[in-house]
Amino acid sequence: MTYLYNMNIPETDYPRVVVIGGGFGGISCARNLINKKVQLVMLDKRNYHTFQPLLYQVSTSGLEPDSIAFPLRKLFNKGNNTYFRLAEVKNINPDKKKIHTNIGELSFDYLVIATGSKTNFFGNENIEKNGVWMKTVPQALNLRSLILENLEQASITDDMDERKRLLNFVIAGAGPTGVELSGAIAEMRKNILTKDYPDIDKEEMHVHLLEGMERVLPPMSKKSSRNAQKYLEDLGVEVHLSTFVEDYKNKQVTTSDGKQFFTETFIWSAGVTGAPVEGFVGKSYMEKGNRYRVNRFNQVGGYESIYAIGDIALMKTDDYPNGHPMVAQPAIQQGKHLAKNLLRSLDGEAMQAFKYYDKGTMATIGRNRAVVDLKSIKFGGVLAWYVWMFVHLWFLIGFKNRIVTFFNWVYNYVNYDRAQRLIIRPFKKKRTQLSDVD
Amino acid sequence: MTYLYNMNIPETDYPRVVVIGGGFGGISCARNLINKKVQLVMLDKRNYHTFQPLLYQVSTSGLEPDSIAFPLRKLFNKGNNTYFRLAEVKNINPDKKKIHTNIGELSFDYLVIATGSKTNFFGNENIEKNGVWMKTVPQALNLRSLILENLEQASITDDMDERKRLLNFVIAGAGPTGVELSGAIAEMRKNILTKDYPDIDKEEMHVHLLEGMERVLPPMSKKSSRNAQKYLEDLGVEVHLSTFVEDYKNKQVTTSDGKQFFTETFIWSAGVTGAPVEGFVGKSYMEKGNRYRVNRFNQVGGYESIYAIGDIALMKTDDYPNGHPMVAQPAIQQGKHLAKNLLRSLDGEAMQAFKYYDKGTMATIGRNRAVVDLKSIKFGGVLAWYVWMFVHLWFLIGFKNRIVTFFNWVYNYVNYDRAQRLIIRPFKKKRTQLSDVD
Repeated sequence: MTYLYNMNIPETDYPRVVVIGGGFGGISCARNLINKKVQLVMLDKRNYHTFQPLLYQVSTSGLEPDSIAFPLRKLFNKGNNTYFRLAEVKNINPDKKKIHTNIGELSFDYLVIATGSKTNFFGNENIEKNGVWMKTVPQALNLRSLILENLEQASITDDMDERKRLLNFVIAGAGPTGVELSGAIAEMRKNILTKDYPDIDKEEMHVHLLEGMERVLPPMSKKSSRNAQKYLEDLGVEVHLSTFVEDYKNKQVTTSDGKQFFTETFIWSAGVTGAPVEGFVGKSYMEKGNRYRVNRFNQVGGYESIYAIGDIALMKTDDYPNGHPMVAQPAIQQGKHLAKNLLRSLDGEAMQAFKYYDKGTMATIGRNRAVVDLKSIKFGGVLAWYVWMFVHLWFLIGFKNRIVTFFNWVYNYVNYDRAQRLIIRPFKKKRTQLSDVD
Repeated sequence: MTYLYNMNIPETDYPRVVVIGGGFGGISCARNLINKKVQLVMLDKRNYHTFQPLLYQVSTSGLEPDSIAFPLRKLFNKGNNTYFRLAEVKNINPDKKKIHTNIGELSFDYLVIATGSKTNFFGNENIEKNGVWMKTVPQALNLRSLILENLEQASITDDMDERKRLLNFVIAGAGPTGVELSGAIAEMRKNILTKDYPDIDKEEMHVHLLEGMERVLPPMSKKSSRNAQKYLEDLGVEVHLSTFVEDYKNKQVTTSDGKQFFTETFIWSAGVTGAPVEGFVGKSYMEKGNRYRVNRFNQVGGYESIYAIGDIALMKTDDYPNGHPMVAQPAIQQGKHLAKNLLRSLDGEAMQAFKYYDKGTMATIGRNRAVVDLKSIKFGGVLAWYVWMFVHLWFLIGFKNRIVTFFNWVYNYVNYDRAQRLIIRPFKKKRTQLSDVD
């Protein structure tokens, strides 16, 4: 099959803005360009936006995958002169202002790179080969299948060492993902295990959370770290601080302080790194962190018409000399800001420098606890959980998703249940065949 | 890995009833045996019950997969002396009263075979190799991905023949599945296509429904057939009656009456056949239809302690000389009846002969039309759609599933939308690797 010229996107009188990536940054930028004086083209290798903060709930049978994803075409189908293409970008030619993708070439007037981040294994091939992680919906579903398959297998094996390994869940990295995931697995242990698997004693199952720093949630306040650790331990999570993972092979995790964990399920949530466009290094590309260096207008260094936002962009400011945290908020704010700057520029006005407004951070632990850090106040507990819940519902895209997610949470809250315990696509036997988009 | 003796299921004073298969028949039987004077063991190769009548809505982006599946362990976790094992049954040894599975052997006192049916290709290998079908959740998801991938590809190919094939959807078989599926695809064409894919003209997309008999929904009343055909045609489905499919190869469907359809998507819903236990033929196994012949007590001919229910059981009665229809109702009724008969028998009472009570049949077409055949009255339209909706919600297992499904229907009804347009696992590139449980 060959492809139509310029991906079948017509020439118009308006300049063409191409946005690569439909994550938080990309859709925030695109939404602010719909029906404005530009032709908008969104490219993504998936046809949906993923609400990453709730992926761990898909992994732990709390939410269905469809609730936290939103079809990108639906986001744009209200716009005139807006286009979506399911495409994987392979390279960028800045001189000719062209993008090369798996479905052909596309010229642009302005390019916004919003390709986000990917899991960072820090070069450890064993972890990449033997571990699991969770940056996409299919990966989250794989983890769900793996957890449930392990429990099934633990019920019937006659090898008691294997049984222990199957019931041992080890999570590396106590950032929000690691904390929320270990809390949710511990919640399953507490409320589901004994109901669903009467052959397994609750005390046989272990959830270990390993963190290299001396506290959980290192970017948050010390108060919230203390609270989060307490909530985790109340749920039965075994927290190991100042513990760096060294390797995972032969079903064994080894650490810098000599600890050993035998496990069939090693979940790596200890770091992310930029996910740049495959063949495009750029003139100011940073080796460390894999992020494109940008100025205060999100312009990629050395190029007039190429911009980068969110996790893939490294903007050094006085407040953030090492760049902004790689989370949703900077991406959302940069996306919106860049859209406005592009429109300003088209109107002949000067662009304005980006300034990040830190709205605070939070994390949830289990069914009804959370910690929240705002500028003026840090608090935890059930109230924090309500705040966490409403903020996440607010940012979740799509009315339908919000209602279904809210209903699921109320249901889980009232019933101490996580209903979606389905192994739709068994993971173990397919493990070796899986690529990132499987 | 080796397995614990008898799948780690303890010996008790009660006789062990093993049910193979968690479909309509299996769970109907099992539910009536929970906490009675038997030890109940349910085996299934999946860990969930599938509500097959709504699979077509998963395929057509109307419902999420989790809404129409229910974890089998959850169904049994209220019972004492009840066990679930995720296992694939390979053979039955009737003399030793043992089952052989992929996770070891299990002895039984009573065995209930409820393995259901599978797609019948009538020996046509091309259709099996090149077509798609829909008996399981993963298959339904594959079809969903395929439909959406086709629309994506149609937007960008420069091969106009390929574009036509991609936008041509051919469904063989106008039973309830074929009718409901083609209605839902036509609904997507009507309400989604022009919104999501402005590059594609509605008139370019075609939905062809092919039926060998001289009317759609052959088992229903002539009035309902007429109504259903009208509703289909109103939605834009092109109905071809008295048209037998002969082959599907080189992307071309050929028929007995010389019609040709060029299509990338040939959906086969023209027949099912029994899905017996792999190695177990039985003494009275019927070649035709692949169903175990049973007496009025659902006892498999020639065996004292082996029973079969639902699609896999062929019970000939005066009212149904060729056996009962292979749909949910006979399975549900036989399951419940057999459970009661087994308990009667354990109490020393005589078993009672099964009698099928036909509650009627129905099918839905599109967003708000249905046809209903009851004994005394046949009717169609919006009222029939309400009846269809409430009956399906009623039989759907799980409070959470009912609420989410109801909400989705109301949402789709009000918004003319099918929200779940997500290609979570692309199908095309994996096509050759897929097995039945992928």
